[in-house]
Amino acid sequence: MRATLIYGAGDVRVETVPDPKLSEPTDALLRVVRSCICGSDLWPYGSMPARDRGVRIGHEFLGVVEAVGSDVTTLKPGDLAVAPFVYSDNTCQFCREGLHTSCLHGGNWGAKGVDAGQGEAVRVPQADGTLVKLPHTEDDDLLASFLTLSDVFATGHHAAVKAGVNERTTVTVIGDGAVGLSAVLAAKRLGAERIILMGRHRTRTDLGREFGATDVVAERGDEGIEKVRELTNGEGTHTVLECVGTKPAFEMGVGAVRPGGTVSRVGVPQYAEGPIGPSLFRRNITVTGGVAPARHYIPELLDDVVEGRYQPGKVFDRTIGLEEVPDGYRAMADREALKVLVKP
Amino acid sequence: MRATLIYGAGDVRVETVPDPKLSEPTDALLRVVRSCICGSDLWPYGSMPARDRGVRIGHEFLGVVEAVGSDVTTLKPGDLAVAPFVYSDNTCQFCREGLHTSCLHGGNWGAKGVDAGQGEAVRVPQADGTLVKLPHTEDDDLLASFLTLSDVFATGHHAAVKAGVNERTTVTVIGDGAVGLSAVLAAKRLGAERIILMGRHRTRTDLGREFGATDVVAERGDEGIEKVRELTNGEGTHTVLECVGTKPAFEMGVGAVRPGGTVSRVGVPQYAEGPIGPSLFRRNITVTGGVAPARHYIPELLDDVVEGRYQPGKVFDRTIGLEEVPDGYRAMADREALKVLVKP
Repeated sequence: MRATLIYGAGDVRVETVPDPKLSEPTDALLRVVRSCICGSDLWPYGSMPARDRGVRIGHEFLGVVEAVGSDVTTLKPGDLAVAPFVYSDNTCQFCREGLHTSCLHGGNWGAKGVDAGQGEAVRVPQADGTLVKLPHTEDDDLLASFLTLSDVFATGHHAAVKAGVNERTTVTVIGDGAVGLSAVLAAKRLGAERIILMGRHRTRTDLGREFGATDVVAERGDEGIEKVRELTNGEGTHTVLECVGTKPAFEMGVGAVRPGGTVSRVGVPQYAEGPIGPSLFRRNITVTGGVAPARHYIPELLDDVVEGRYQPGKVFDRTIGLEEVPDGYRAMADREALKVLVKP
Repeated sequence: MRATLIYGAGDVRVETVPDPKLSEPTDALLRVVRSCICGSDLWPYGSMPARDRGVRIGHEFLGVVEAVGSDVTTLKPGDLAVAPFVYSDNTCQFCREGLHTSCLHGGNWGAKGVDAGQGEAVRVPQADGTLVKLPHTEDDDLLASFLTLSDVFATGHHAAVKAGVNERTTVTVIGDGAVGLSAVLAAKRLGAERIILMGRHRTRTDLGREFGATDVVAERGDEGIEKVRELTNGEGTHTVLECVGTKPAFEMGVGAVRPGGTVSRVGVPQYAEGPIGPSLFRRNITVTGGVAPARHYIPELLDDVVEGRYQPGKVFDRTIGLEEVPDGYRAMADREALKVLVKP
């Protein structure tokens, strides 16, 4: 089959790889119907040292079950199902607590011996625990929104949940990428009435307004902090959803949050140490967030998508075939595209 | 009157200073009956650059009201009252939310024009908002425990509250100082059944066991982390109450906490940046805590002290007069005394 591999910064290739097959009785084989490129894929695309052997990449996908191992009970061939961006057994103590990203028997797509999502097919370990059956067919208009449950909408939701967003909290969302916009939508869904979106790309912030942002702040750094404070009686917002992952973005979050408030991070931190010293401490700021346990959230979010209450799939603004994936990376890295959907 | 001033590292003096008098209609004058030395006073005692003019020090005290301004309605001369370690109006929006340390009209003891606690008397700004009337007399055996409401017990309680300690959470307390031991007591009070105390001073950890610690870990660093994991099925505890404030203590907290768990800091951080990068993020660790809004907690904790259910005053292991305060600092810095009570 064909699948995407990354060889280093700026070097993504689609190549022929061995066809996946069932190896454990808990496996399923999934023919990928939709995949996509994640903002976090752009980190290795921007900086990974070159290597002789490529590594498989892509962690967001949905598709049709082609075969299942003998222990799989919740899926059968022909089912349409979505995979969260890590696999998990859904039965260990961490999964039972809703932290599927710390599953004792889970792991990452593209890790040694595990397929990744930007390809024609995937062997899915722990299929019963990982895959969530979708109630529609593969021709459905809802496929793009279903695919966001795999990562981007679930991640925005995680940011909002960990921050404690509700109808009484003001919210700042840092970043107008697909995760930031998803966080706006998630905050709105959780009842937030005041959502300040920090971003400077007009087409993206326009979608942010459609998703529920009440204010847009284009300024960054100290100026951005000042603007958020101006909008909030000098205080900052109760919650900040940091959806970028750079240190300046986190610092902006710390500046924009209200005393007693929470900075919730879902952008993978590109820094080892951050400013959590006396100034944060004196104001009783909480820092939370992390990799989103998408699997935990999918059932809840799926209902809203199926019934058309939310359309997170609007974050996709380009659709390509599998062979065009390298250009999809380029387009996202150049900010020509917000988020690229792949139809293998 | 006589009061304590600090002139630099290792240089604490008791001197004659102007008698306080009412200056605002919201003031009260308090004759100090009990004060004490805080672990956080040891930071300037250890490192403050020498200066020509000393600064007043001490932020934990209780005493008898001697006079009140014309706007003060909740106190009258003769009342015994305790002061939290910052003053506050108890009416602004932050106070109403329970975050008195961010009071819009509050401030620190010993700041310019404001008395500090290690002296014979204090002008108390915002007296109605700051002071809490105590139901007993100044001869009471409970005075030591009442004094802990000013800071140390309230601070241990804050660590536990922010961490979300309850009967289902395992707890690690880092630090066997007075705050750490208070955190043990607070965690026990909130229902925790498994409390691991990290400390290496036997007399202190013995008091920790009396307060509710179920295990004591004397090791530090990676060895300490390993011990906590051994005690918790390899996982770490749901919550870590970091009661020291050094970077190694925080790093130990990050290592000892369970995935999805919380490190709650109440030791004033002696570092500007800390390790909050990918390893924290991947495990969904929350970092919370800060300066404790003692005023918010006093009414709730006071009931338990009055009724004898908890005796946080046991953290005091030495009582001195005001003129002996410099030696009290030395004794605490040398770890000869755990916490020093001052009877002016």
